[in-house]
Amino acid sequence: MSAEFKFELQAKNGLGRRGKISTAHGEVDTPAFMPVGTAATVKGMLPEQVAETGAQIILGNTYHLMLRPGAERVAELGGLHKFMNWPGPILTDSGGYQVMSLAQLRKITEKGVAFQSHIDGSRHELTPERSIKIQHLLGADISMVLDECTPFPADEKTTAESMRLSMRWAQQSRDAFKKRDGHGLFGIVQGGIYPELRAESADALKQIGFDGYAIGGLAVGEGQELMFQTLETTVPHLPAPAPRYLMGVGKPPDIVGAVQRGVDMFDCVLPTRSGRTAQAFTRRGTVNLMNARHAADLRPLDPDCSCYTCRKYSRAYLNHLLKCQEMLGPMLLTRHNLHYYQELMAGLRGAIEEGSLESFAAKFHADYTAGDIEEV
Amino acid sequence: MSAEFKFELQAKNGLGRRGKISTAHGEVDTPAFMPVGTAATVKGMLPEQVAETGAQIILGNTYHLMLRPGAERVAELGGLHKFMNWPGPILTDSGGYQVMSLAQLRKITEKGVAFQSHIDGSRHELTPERSIKIQHLLGADISMVLDECTPFPADEKTTAESMRLSMRWAQQSRDAFKKRDGHGLFGIVQGGIYPELRAESADALKQIGFDGYAIGGLAVGEGQELMFQTLETTVPHLPAPAPRYLMGVGKPPDIVGAVQRGVDMFDCVLPTRSGRTAQAFTRRGTVNLMNARHAADLRPLDPDCSCYTCRKYSRAYLNHLLKCQEMLGPMLLTRHNLHYYQELMAGLRGAIEEGSLESFAAKFHADYTAGDIEEV
Repeated sequence: MSAEFKFELQAKNGLGRRGKISTAHGEVDTPAFMPVGTAATVKGMLPEQVAETGAQIILGNTYHLMLRPGAERVAELGGLHKFMNWPGPILTDSGGYQVMSLAQLRKITEKGVAFQSHIDGSRHELTPERSIKIQHLLGADISMVLDECTPFPADEKTTAESMRLSMRWAQQSRDAFKKRDGHGLFGIVQGGIYPELRAESADALKQIGFDGYAIGGLAVGEGQELMFQTLETTVPHLPAPAPRYLMGVGKPPDIVGAVQRGVDMFDCVLPTRSGRTAQAFTRRGTVNLMNARHAADLRPLDPDCSCYTCRKYSRAYLNHLLKCQEMLGPMLLTRHNLHYYQELMAGLRGAIEEGSLESFAAKFHADYTAGDIEEV
Repeated sequence: MSAEFKFELQAKNGLGRRGKISTAHGEVDTPAFMPVGTAATVKGMLPEQVAETGAQIILGNTYHLMLRPGAERVAELGGLHKFMNWPGPILTDSGGYQVMSLAQLRKITEKGVAFQSHIDGSRHELTPERSIKIQHLLGADISMVLDECTPFPADEKTTAESMRLSMRWAQQSRDAFKKRDGHGLFGIVQGGIYPELRAESADALKQIGFDGYAIGGLAVGEGQELMFQTLETTVPHLPAPAPRYLMGVGKPPDIVGAVQRGVDMFDCVLPTRSGRTAQAFTRRGTVNLMNARHAADLRPLDPDCSCYTCRKYSRAYLNHLLKCQEMLGPMLLTRHNLHYYQELMAGLRGAIEEGSLESFAAKFHADYTAGDIEEV
């Protein structure tokens, strides 16, 4: 497949946008949630099951893949899509965020970041050029510029310096990116919680010109209120005809609020990681399936959910599997959680089309905070 | 569903038998291999995937299920079939074998065995009556009598005393078993490696009368030669019109040899456990997918295998998943291994029907010992 990389804006409702991204490996309806497939697998899920939840695009982690099995190796093996049997679009991050959170002996310079692998201590260097090259070798439909995710909290001076380094790297990333049909490169707005810095960063990226604009450096401990404030001051500076991606977000209420503030794309480990730690998402909030109160409960996790897990299994069975540390527990919960997230996105898309985003969000919040389904 | 529990002998070739067992939850073509679903799950597999490999019956472990979630709890929840979403036949063991291998502070008396749970130290007692009751509560299509699996090696006197205790328990189990349409009870021949004791045990069971006859106390370290010798002296004492089940066996060559000696049913943790430890079964023997030589190998595990794993993934990807300790690695290998075992059983059934069991077995052995597919 090859086609122009493009973003089509189909409907608006307030600041909420309904759109479609076209990539070399297919289309993505937005607002979209991307399940995280760190090491060339969405943990505990077959690719067909990921697609069945409604996911159209997944995220791969450059940091993990450059270490294992290695970008050149993936390229030799035909690229990430073939390697992991996922025929749809893939977005890869730049590796920068995970170098900072996982790798050892990190050293940031103007040139890039040097580090040692958390797996075997081997030495690596990630520069804007190398990050783009790795993402190209992986075969990403959407590549991200290398940036420094500014720690939180950070004062304005530190945040400004970090953001400006990221902007220079953004230019170098853009220069290194080889244009190919159906493949896009996204810039990443930094600037912490400082509106002027966010505006400066957005303007710098617009000057360079990207296929999409991500908002980085959020969901790092600042809380929902500051996150939403930052979105409100940042999004107006982003070009309307390009998709907007809020990185690493988030909890369902974060996503709903961000869509109401004009964001189109999300990724987060929450549905998959929670699935491995007994936490399930439902329209009535989260439920911990390890809790003994589920042990004799014949009802599904959510009687209104149409996912495989809810159609076939009881809370009692899920509780049993988790207590016994059986692999099937995380497999079934992950599948439910990803289905929940995709249903939420489908609901948001439908609400924008119908012009009912505000009432959709109000109902979502009322339900989500109303307590577990079981207690209704 | 309810139907008569019966065994229909459809074809013979030498001592090899092709048959069909009818149970309350469906039919089982024999020779049959039963995947092990210890704690109400075949580890890492969805029930639909288990069925897709060709498995028609699975085994549940009474010991594990009586401890977690408890037999009465499973019954309250509608029985094991409903609990775990497996609509087909289920055979449960008596719990005796695992009490001896897993539980703590075991004490065997004429009455049964008292023990402490390996999970939480709670005290339990397993008598012939309680074992049969538990299996009834679980809803097993095929229940097994409580027996003592005689340790190996054991002298003739010890083996005889142990076997005779098992025969008294067999009578008590038979007395406790409630006849229901489509549900059967199997006796278990003991007697170690002593032909006279095996014959005495088989005769005792025939006197009591069972729906099937298992051969216990093998695959406990005696080696294939002694196992086959014991089958050769035991099987002639078993009634032809009933299925014969060799418990806990085994490696593919063990199964082929046992089918040639008149065995109809098998169970073993090998395909599932190996799947979690990187070992794959192929017609060319076993392959360890953790080995670095697979890291760049684009070929499937077995190019002639039609399983999901072999159709969709490379050895390189499986190697990557296993190195990264990703859940998907065991999931994919288990699926392949179970498919391999079921294909082997289908091959054996076809060969018996065609009268070519001997040449099938000869070809199987030649291939199985010829070295990894990769090296051909």
